[in-house]
Amino acid sequence: MITKRTDLALEARELWQESAEKTSRLSGVKAEKTKREGYPVTTVKILDQEGAKALGKPVGNYRTVDLTSYWQRKPEFFERAVRTLGGELRELLPGEGTVLVVGLGNRAMTPDAIGPEVLSHLLVTRHLISAMPKQFAGFRPVAAFGAGVLGTTGVESAEAVRALVRETKPDVVIAVDALAARRMGRVCNTVQLSDTGIIPGSGVGNHREALDRRTLGVPVIAVGVPTVVDGATLAADLLEEAGITDIDEKKLRSHGKNVTVTPRDIDAQVRDLSKVVGYAVNWALQDLEIEEINALLS
Amino acid sequence: MITKRTDLALEARELWQESAEKTSRLSGVKAEKTKREGYPVTTVKILDQEGAKALGKPVGNYRTVDLTSYWQRKPEFFERAVRTLGGELRELLPGEGTVLVVGLGNRAMTPDAIGPEVLSHLLVTRHLISAMPKQFAGFRPVAAFGAGVLGTTGVESAEAVRALVRETKPDVVIAVDALAARRMGRVCNTVQLSDTGIIPGSGVGNHREALDRRTLGVPVIAVGVPTVVDGATLAADLLEEAGITDIDEKKLRSHGKNVTVTPRDIDAQVRDLSKVVGYAVNWALQDLEIEEINALLS
Amino acid sequence: MITKRTDLALEARELWQESAEKTSRLSGVKAEKTKREGYPVTTVKILDQEGAKALGKPVGNYRTVDLTSYWQRKPEFFERAVRTLGGELRELLPGEGTVLVVGLGNRAMTPDAIGPEVLSHLLVTRHLISAMPKQFAGFRPVAAFGAGVLGTTGVESAEAVRALVRETKPDVVIAVDALAARRMGRVCNTVQLSDTGIIPGSGVGNHREALDRRTLGVPVIAVGVPTVVDGATLAADLLEEAGITDIDEKKLRSHGKNVTVTPRDIDAQVRDLSKVVGYAVNWALQDLEIEEINALLS
Amino acid sequence: MITKRTDLALEARELWQESAEKTSRLSGVKAEKTKREGYPVTTVKILDQEGAKALGKPVGNYRTVDLTSYWQRKPEFFERAVRTLGGELRELLPGEGTVLVVGLGNRAMTPDAIGPEVLSHLLVTRHLISAMPKQFAGFRPVAAFGAGVLGTTGVESAEAVRALVRETKPDVVIAVDALAARRMGRVCNTVQLSDTGIIPGSGVGNHREALDRRTLGVPVIAVGVPTVVDGATLAADLLEEAGITDIDEKKLRSHGKNVTVTPRDIDAQVRDLSKVVGYAVNWALQDLEIEEINALLS
Repeated sequence: MITKRTDLALEARELWQESAEKTSRLSGVKAEKTKREGYPVTTVKILDQEGAKALGKPVGNYRTVDLTSYWQRKPEFFERAVRTLGGELRELLPGEGTVLVVGLGNRAMTPDAIGPEVLSHLLVTRHLISAMPKQFAGFRPVAAFGAGVLGTTGVESAEAVRALVRETKPDVVIAVDALAARRMGRVCNTVQLSDTGIIPGSGVGNHREALDRRTLGVPVIAVGVPTVVDGATLAADLLEEAGITDIDEKKLRSHGKNVTVTPRDIDAQVRDLSKVVGYAVNWALQDLEIEEINALLS
Repeated sequence: MITKRTDLALEARELWQESAEKTSRLSGVKAEKTKREGYPVTTVKILDQEGAKALGKPVGNYRTVDLTSYWQRKPEFFERAVRTLGGELRELLPGEGTVLVVGLGNRAMTPDAIGPEVLSHLLVTRHLISAMPKQFAGFRPVAAFGAGVLGTTGVESAEAVRALVRETKPDVVIAVDALAARRMGRVCNTVQLSDTGIIPGSGVGNHREALDRRTLGVPVIAVGVPTVVDGATLAADLLEEAGITDIDEKKLRSHGKNVTVTPRDIDAQVRDLSKVVGYAVNWALQDLEIEEINALLS
Repeated sequence: MITKRTDLALEARELWQESAEKTSRLSGVKAEKTKREGYPVTTVKILDQEGAKALGKPVGNYRTVDLTSYWQRKPEFFERAVRTLGGELRELLPGEGTVLVVGLGNRAMTPDAIGPEVLSHLLVTRHLISAMPKQFAGFRPVAAFGAGVLGTTGVESAEAVRALVRETKPDVVIAVDALAARRMGRVCNTVQLSDTGIIPGSGVGNHREALDRRTLGVPVIAVGVPTVVDGATLAADLLEEAGITDIDEKKLRSHGKNVTVTPRDIDAQVRDLSKVVGYAVNWALQDLEIEEINALLS
Repeated sequence: MITKRTDLALEARELWQESAEKTSRLSGVKAEKTKREGYPVTTVKILDQEGAKALGKPVGNYRTVDLTSYWQRKPEFFERAVRTLGGELRELLPGEGTVLVVGLGNRAMTPDAIGPEVLSHLLVTRHLISAMPKQFAGFRPVAAFGAGVLGTTGVESAEAVRALVRETKPDVVIAVDALAARRMGRVCNTVQLSDTGIIPGSGVGNHREALDRRTLGVPVIAVGVPTVVDGATLAADLLEEAGITDIDEKKLRSHGKNVTVTPRDIDAQVRDLSKVVGYAVNWALQDLEIEEINALLS
């Protein structure tokens, strides 16, 4: 029984393994670890309904890039992070066609602002290509949409995105959102890409209508950045890390469950990661070097 | 021939009168001056195509509230401004039904930010009424949408609003935008309400597809706040005010036309006016006193 | 041995009691609980060096106002909070003389921004009284200073404040800063007032030169709002709350010590509490009702 | 009689020439035009009291860099602008010693925010050199101070800067502020450097105590960016540009004098110019390439 809260398939798999009998085997799920430009990448494939049920996530591919070493600011850390994320993202995307990038979440709440913030680093080209098709022939059409949050718009994100998809007819949607992780060490240190779509606000505890191929009619690639962890999960994992394992988790959870926390320096981390993700999306979509993206955005 | 740039029907009428022969008569246009709570209100009615052609604006009603005395901060200046604008607005709106309030313009450019800023003072109720119809029975359903600008979304405001109108089916749209005035004295001192819809970005010189009953299928009430004036118009009007009238305007215009200016203290003025307009919209739509609106928004 | 990290005298006393033998007695410390306008107030008096050593805080008076019920938004919650904090603060302040209010901390880091944010709700009067002494005779002279942080100024906060104190010669300094608490339940729910001065940045782990009567030559009243908690402390306290007490804390601490966390909705909480604290300072210093403060600040 | 309002020595000289009889000669003033990295540089030297009286500015050197072509975004426009400004600035600065960079003006008012905004692009090193003198031996000590404005601090900028100068004992002060220009074409297109100090707020019409060698005891290098123009001056100059010269300026001025205007896109221009000026100060002070500055600031 998984009670620890996580939006990462990687962690859902860990939790299954921890909770399972030694003899049992997780079927319907495949995992693989690789490296790209020095950053570890873990791929979890949920192959069937059995796997989906075990991990509590839809069937599909989940790739988690571990950016922990990003913060050490070694040579080319930014460029390598962009190419790593961008390279992985490119493999999940159709090779051509119009793209709608949706930034989910609340701009006024820092740990939830990663979606809208990413949009400010995006090369938006749809209108340029439409107005000057010859001059912009080398670009892929990209539109951007900040869906806002229900409390300030009165409209579900999924409803607003569906409206825009109908009107603008993109070939694929990339949806960027904040997530919740299980381990503090993954918060602001990992990015999960998946081809399964996303449920807006899952990182912040309000489950909403999904954005996926079923609801939107086009593939939805999700880009999620964990920015929060719940208090009880944090406590349980600090205990585990410290080798203290005989804790009555139910008891613990019954007290700490409503405290969702985020790192103290979340402003700086969201600012940095928004730029990495935005550039990675540009890098995946356009045939441009990072310095060219830089020049176009400044 | 009107060459001075203005989005205010009030000023278009003035310009017609200044340019016209003394003997001619402006037909198809009616104007009337009244006062509400101490603030002057000018109503210009464009009755037919003749009037529309003369003033360069569509047929319909235009009400301009003069808030110049607002800045003197006399007793109840805020409450009176809200009730004046709100009262005028209420007369243009259908008495019931769902409302979509659209904030046009660029949040990152202060003189163009009035639309998006107004949304942050709005009582958004659509989702609450939908979730708890009994508890929120006393409220009118209101949704809000910040359309963004073409350069950052790749999607025309009119396109995005149309998409949302189709999806959410409001009975009326209220569209808030920045305008250009002819006289500096009207900039940040007046608000124009009209039942004719609006062309996004007209205040900043980029003509786009209109938001009106024809394009959206529902009535569109425009709320416009002049925040800019063009340099040549400013010069010509300063000369007129000084009684210097024998100027070769064409010559003047050929030099100053590309300089659009705004008051130095535009940040404070946009902040103040956004609150007045937002509260006025709430006051027009909901059966609430200003202090109740205040309590709900804090 | 107190290893749990806290800036609250209230919590330092709790920790002493938890760690102490049942038979021993905390000498040199007095504590008292009262209520004001419905909000609980705990006063801890550290009477001598023995008490100071036991709690790890300087001799002096510490008053902690518990604003937990503020967030329930019952009638007059804001006014009551302002009068409670303001009333307690007034008792710590000299009855007359010029006041310098210093906002410590980093405006760009939300959990550390409470000091600078409070300044934007302050009635600053020193220059008005100096220019028009008759007209402003009814006001107490107040100046404000946002000291910035070492990383962005190159100057220690204490150094900059000392310079300003020498130049402007206030009779008392009020220093507002973010603190670290031990229990998540106190974060953004309590405000500590003390007459002992403050060490800038103690809430965020960088100990600096103190701001107190010794270093500045005038009394320093500290106003501290806990906005962060360290991860290991959070874990230990969640365990305690759950009745799990047999934990090897040293082991735990060796893992979680570098994670400092803050609530997910810290933006909204800092915004709200800054206004409460700012208004409380105005209320304590000036002979004004809250609605008069409101009118002067808008 | 110069009635047109300008803070630029360059323009004060133009105005003298326009107003003077053809036969008279401006004595005590020398001017010279050069180019650096493609950007025109005008040097005006006010040599004596006669020159000072004629131009209404203190004796000293004024260098105005014309960045008009910056906005064409030709190759290396940013780097060339930084090296041009930085190179001119270096010639006005002492070759060694500690530097205090002061950002004057109001962060909350866009046309007045250039001073505080520049500080966010500054390499602040004083504390690093003090803590790790060996490691940072290659850097020049730089501290930064945002003086705030009288209305929000209650303390004159000059008073606060003097306090900080006494405490931190810099060898030179660089003071950055917004200015008023006479011609709209110079607004956000020029930067004036001078070795005469500065009167805070002169750009926005509130004359205050000067920051100069006399009041601070150390040389003060002023960096001024014109961001506003007054309405009557704008009108008069548009007329001149259009060849309309027989205007009763007094009459004109009596009407338009209180309208101070700024370009509509002032947000973007202040953002851009703050970065240019900040990098130029870094380039003038430190032995670093622009890309090294970039790496240190990101």
